Amino acid sequence: MAASCGVTFVDVLKALERISPFIHKTPIFTSEQANRKCGRQLFFKCENFQKSGSFKARGALNAVLKCQQVKPNVNGVVTHSSGNHGQALAWAAQRANLPCCVVVPQMAPDVKKNAIRGYGAELLECGPKPSDRNEACDKVQDDRNFELIPPYDHVDVIAGQGTIAVELLEQVPFLDAILVPISGGGMSSGICIAAKTIKPDIKIFIVAPKGKRLEECLRTGKRPWEGPPQYLDTIADGIRLQQTGYITTPILMELAEKDVFEMSDEEIIEGMKFSFERMKLVIETAAGASVAAAFSDRLRKMDPDLKNVGVILCGGNLDIENLPF
Amino acid sequence: MAASCGVTFVDVLKALERISPFIHKTPIFTSEQANRKCGRQLFFKCENFQKSGSFKARGALNAVLKCQQVKPNVNGVVTHSSGNHGQALAWAAQRANLPCCVVVPQMAPDVKKNAIRGYGAELLECGPKPSDRNEACDKVQDDRNFELIPPYDHVDVIAGQGTIAVELLEQVPFLDAILVPISGGGMSSGICIAAKTIKPDIKIFIVAPKGKRLEECLRTGKRPWEGPPQYLDTIADGIRLQQTGYITTPILMELAEKDVFEMSDEEIIEGMKFSFERMKLVIETAAGASVAAAFSDRLRKMDPDLKNVGVILCGGNLDIENLPF
Repeated sequence: MAASCGVTFVDVLKALERISPFIHKTPIFTSEQANRKCGRQLFFKCENFQKSGSFKARGALNAVLKCQQVKPNVNGVVTHSSGNHGQALAWAAQRANLPCCVVVPQMAPDVKKNAIRGYGAELLECGPKPSDRNEACDKVQDDRNFELIPPYDHVDVIAGQGTIAVELLEQVPFLDAILVPISGGGMSSGICIAAKTIKPDIKIFIVAPKGKRLEECLRTGKRPWEGPPQYLDTIADGIRLQQTGYITTPILMELAEKDVFEMSDEEIIEGMKFSFERMKLVIETAAGASVAAAFSDRLRKMDPDLKNVGVILCGGNLDIENLPF
Repeated sequence: MAASCGVTFVDVLKALERISPFIHKTPIFTSEQANRKCGRQLFFKCENFQKSGSFKARGALNAVLKCQQVKPNVNGVVTHSSGNHGQALAWAAQRANLPCCVVVPQMAPDVKKNAIRGYGAELLECGPKPSDRNEACDKVQDDRNFELIPPYDHVDVIAGQGTIAVELLEQVPFLDAILVPISGGGMSSGICIAAKTIKPDIKIFIVAPKGKRLEECLRTGKRPWEGPPQYLDTIADGIRLQQTGYITTPILMELAEKDVFEMSDEEIIEGMKFSFERMKLVIETAAGASVAAAFSDRLRKMDPDLKNVGVILCGGNLDIENLPF
């Protein structure tokens, strides 16, 4: 299963064994109101309660522990991210007693910088251009013998994120489909590999902001994006990257459903509001997109046999003093 | 234990048997960050996930089911409350297939009125004076043979709220103390009766907004409040009633600790923010007061042998479009 892409179900199981002493087996929440609104039974996987506040802790920790195992001489880990992956890698490195350096643009908000520092990582500020952060990362790798752990296009990161599906299908074995938000595709490709091995007829639906062009990609089997990576115009800052990765995309082409849910800002905000008001769960905008997909017309019109649907609430990190409602 | 006050531990156990098929056994959350901040181990009882969004579902449902049992000819239930008790009674009556009428002041916010209507209850609007709502309630009782279920000063309501402590001490048997927010005292007196019977040396600490004068009440054994009931000047709208009840107060005098935690608006807001940001839990202001008490200097200076402390997150109903931060 998907072994052609370099990540196998066995990798996911090994990842789970490696990280499970340190991460939360996050709970499943249900809501009668949500079921009525959707017309199906929804099962929310609460990665907002995960260590570091998002699912990213899984992939980051798996990559860090694997790196310690196969490259014992490495002096530390480095990445560039002011978002969830930066926090997660800082957390994971602290767990593994390995130095960590996170490259962030100077202009990143203080709240994010402080969260990364809070997990004991070194913060390295760089200029605003993508080339600035790459140069800074390269320098840390070369000068200090640190290993780069990228946010999604990395087999150990993908295998780590896949552990979500192993837990979810143990907790709710009778799922017919899973809704997964996407940015670079680390989580969705990991979930595809694990879920489609455990249960080959389960359907994995990807959820993205408007303008992703991933449906075109999955239907044609070709990357539709040209030029350098663009950011989408969306409120969901965790998933605004348009292009998916070079390791992740072939996995999605092989295993994900071709129907991609593209959600508008209004729908994403409504999804978040439902979670806050009705379920009492603080979720970030990307998770709001999952909820919105569960309540969408597109899902409503799909095969009624998809009775039990998993919804990944990918994280809960957001600036609560600037909520979009 | 506390049988003199008309509510016994057996009443609480009967309540639990009666309501447990319909309510959530709410989970316990922990937070390493909270433990570090407090210097003790904290165990948060998440009644924000309870049916109707607050612990009030327990007392309301127990009172409704007991009423159906002992007064089978009653045509319905009535109360006056635009807050959690109104929603909870509406929910409980719907569960019991009993008509429900909730008297609310005309000027109550639409969001609260809609929540009550959402559970299928009839909404009866009245004037702004306390006498207006009493008259409206009396009329429904007399004209339609509805039973009045008051928000706290009622033995079945108290017994229902006491079920929180039975669950909590089953989930965390080694607790040394519990922090409980108070308004009229239904929850705190119920928790006192149950917790002090199960574990006589546990300490129940009450948490209130500034100006409550409950510590004076508990230390002197006399009600310090004069004149008609007043509202406290606090952001915590669920617990702004100054006076505690006539059934609840003697129970508290007998069983609660004399030290009462009085929290300021700033502390309450900080408590809420911690819950939203770090624990990803939506809680209402009254629950923010509990969190604030856990982080207070007053608790910090107490007996270090109080190692394991329960914190009641009483509810999660609030206007998320108007958060105080």
